[in-house]
Amino acid sequence: MGDRCTVTIRGCDLMSYFSDMTNLCWFLEPELEDAIKNLHGAVGNAATEDRYIVVGTGSTQLCQAAIHALSSLAGTNPVSVVAAAPFYSTYVEETTYVRSGMYNWEGDAWSFDKKGPYIELVTSPNNPDGTIRETVVNRPDDDEAKVIHDFAYYWPHYTPITRRQDHDIMLFTFSKITGHAGSRIGWALVKDKEVAKKMVEYIIVNSIGVSKESQVRTAKILNVLKETCKSESESDNFFKYGREMMKDRWEKLREVVKESDAFTLPKYPEAFCNYFGKSLESYPAFAWLGTKEETDLASELRRHKVLCRAGERCGSDKKHVRVSMLSREDDFNAFLERLANMKAH
Amino acid sequence: MGDRCTVTIRGCDLMSYFSDMTNLCWFLEPELEDAIKNLHGAVGNAATEDRYIVVGTGSTQLCQAAIHALSSLAGTNPVSVVAAAPFYSTYVEETTYVRSGMYNWEGDAWSFDKKGPYIELVTSPNNPDGTIRETVVNRPDDDEAKVIHDFAYYWPHYTPITRRQDHDIMLFTFSKITGHAGSRIGWALVKDKEVAKKMVEYIIVNSIGVSKESQVRTAKILNVLKETCKSESESDNFFKYGREMMKDRWEKLREVVKESDAFTLPKYPEAFCNYFGKSLESYPAFAWLGTKEETDLASELRRHKVLCRAGERCGSDKKHVRVSMLSREDDFNAFLERLANMKAH
Repeated sequence: MGDRCTVTIRGCDLMSYFSDMTNLCWFLEPELEDAIKNLHGAVGNAATEDRYIVVGTGSTQLCQAAIHALSSLAGTNPVSVVAAAPFYSTYVEETTYVRSGMYNWEGDAWSFDKKGPYIELVTSPNNPDGTIRETVVNRPDDDEAKVIHDFAYYWPHYTPITRRQDHDIMLFTFSKITGHAGSRIGWALVKDKEVAKKMVEYIIVNSIGVSKESQVRTAKILNVLKETCKSESESDNFFKYGREMMKDRWEKLREVVKESDAFTLPKYPEAFCNYFGKSLESYPAFAWLGTKEETDLASELRRHKVLCRAGERCGSDKKHVRVSMLSREDDFNAFLERLANMKAH
Repeated sequence: MGDRCTVTIRGCDLMSYFSDMTNLCWFLEPELEDAIKNLHGAVGNAATEDRYIVVGTGSTQLCQAAIHALSSLAGTNPVSVVAAAPFYSTYVEETTYVRSGMYNWEGDAWSFDKKGPYIELVTSPNNPDGTIRETVVNRPDDDEAKVIHDFAYYWPHYTPITRRQDHDIMLFTFSKITGHAGSRIGWALVKDKEVAKKMVEYIIVNSIGVSKESQVRTAKILNVLKETCKSESESDNFFKYGREMMKDRWEKLREVVKESDAFTLPKYPEAFCNYFGKSLESYPAFAWLGTKEETDLASELRRHKVLCRAGERCGSDKKHVRVSMLSREDDFNAFLERLANMKAH
């Protein structure tokens, strides 16, 4: 995108802790708030009206802020935290490392049957396996049932945008839209004022707000992204470009897996994408690779110099691993080659 | 400083989570590490050799990372956390909000006598009262005694640099050097490798590292600062300029307090400053204002539209408050005026 995304920050800019004292989330830069709303509006993946936007140091900090907020507002503590396996393994660390008395990680939501307040983390498309998810603990009349929707990957280069999501707490992250992980910018769209307030309180004590430099750069880049949504050209429209790249990688990977008889990959149903206006496939950010043999797939891959996250860490089994589909071109091609060589043995 | 501190960041810069995989703190930008070392070298306020530098989202995140690290390495949990009153009131929130089972806030270090492992937070110059501090819980032969030195205000515009500090864990923050609070950049100088590792682990789970945009901007500005240290001119040398500004404000405040007979301010001894090469006074970032009358000073000030932090929140009494000396010129002058009017009543 050349110079369109360049930002220049003068020495005297962005010095204060405060961005907008009239906003409940007073450390959120107004231009970032606008850019977030505009991008969701252009893509149609989430409702932003009648919601509070809370900015975080990545969605990592926001997920913890949301769990903290819901727990402090729950009738009793500790609150159970669950996610349906296979789940994002980092949820385990996030909910255990400070040994909080406010919540307990209770593991796989499929087998959860504890009484009392609980929070279900729903990641859709799911990390690590790319499936479309809804809640699996169904206690619809239960006031103590809370849900955090992690929509990090709900963008049109990865998955068909089938509906405009409008859940109570929705998490998004800059890093999984354009790859700007170094900026550490995430945001939450939050319906309930008290929950938003508690999340803001958490972020104040945790880090007194969020980098302003990252916020203004994110705003700039999201604005450019939104502009490109209007373009019909594949080289100009970011999501078109990204979808073609993901498609290419997935086709190559599926080809290697098909040639082999050793591995498995999930199949994803086509669905009508409101953004592209046609029926489309899913090209998740991670491949949830399985083996047909009775082996420890993570160790096997590591022996062949392929880095991955073991399925067991995600609440699954030794026969599955998570591999990134977002690596640099050279790394991705090396991965394909090494995988192709493995099948030969 | 005009354009000397301007940074320009292109769209494709700083995208990765990683800054330097060979560094224990792999999310620390090498140029920031260099800038930190060079500035401490030029100012002479802290030893950086044979230490690990851990970057954080403000020293707020680092203080929590350090408490977390020391607690996970302690023989038993919970570890007691104390600070000598009057203390930085935020320490209370930082050590209680997640209700961790790893540590407990035990309040004023002066009255602390609990057995078992403990961490003493030593802030010097102290926030809120500007005094020079050392540890007050003295158990020198105790393996379970750990200290975190918060040197946020140990810079030559505030206080004479009397020695090159070389403690085990020393915290610094960009916000209190130049006022760039919005960048949320702090750093810890850490002697022990295991402690540094655990701090890095904490920051990984808490926020997967620290904004790269803030890091490169901080590096740029610290480099300019360091360059100005060579200048004899008061308008070019940042710390000279800052010291003159602080001196001017303190003299004005002392004048108002002297005219009145209602208020008190601490006196600070002169000391030889190695940076300026002469004996100098202290001009702390906060005024620890007291009243001679039996009143609730914070309420009294608020009635006169002066914002402050109540002494009780800092482990002190109703007769003291903390007032910022770093406000904008107009706000500071309004403060002086309102204070002068109060004495008349």
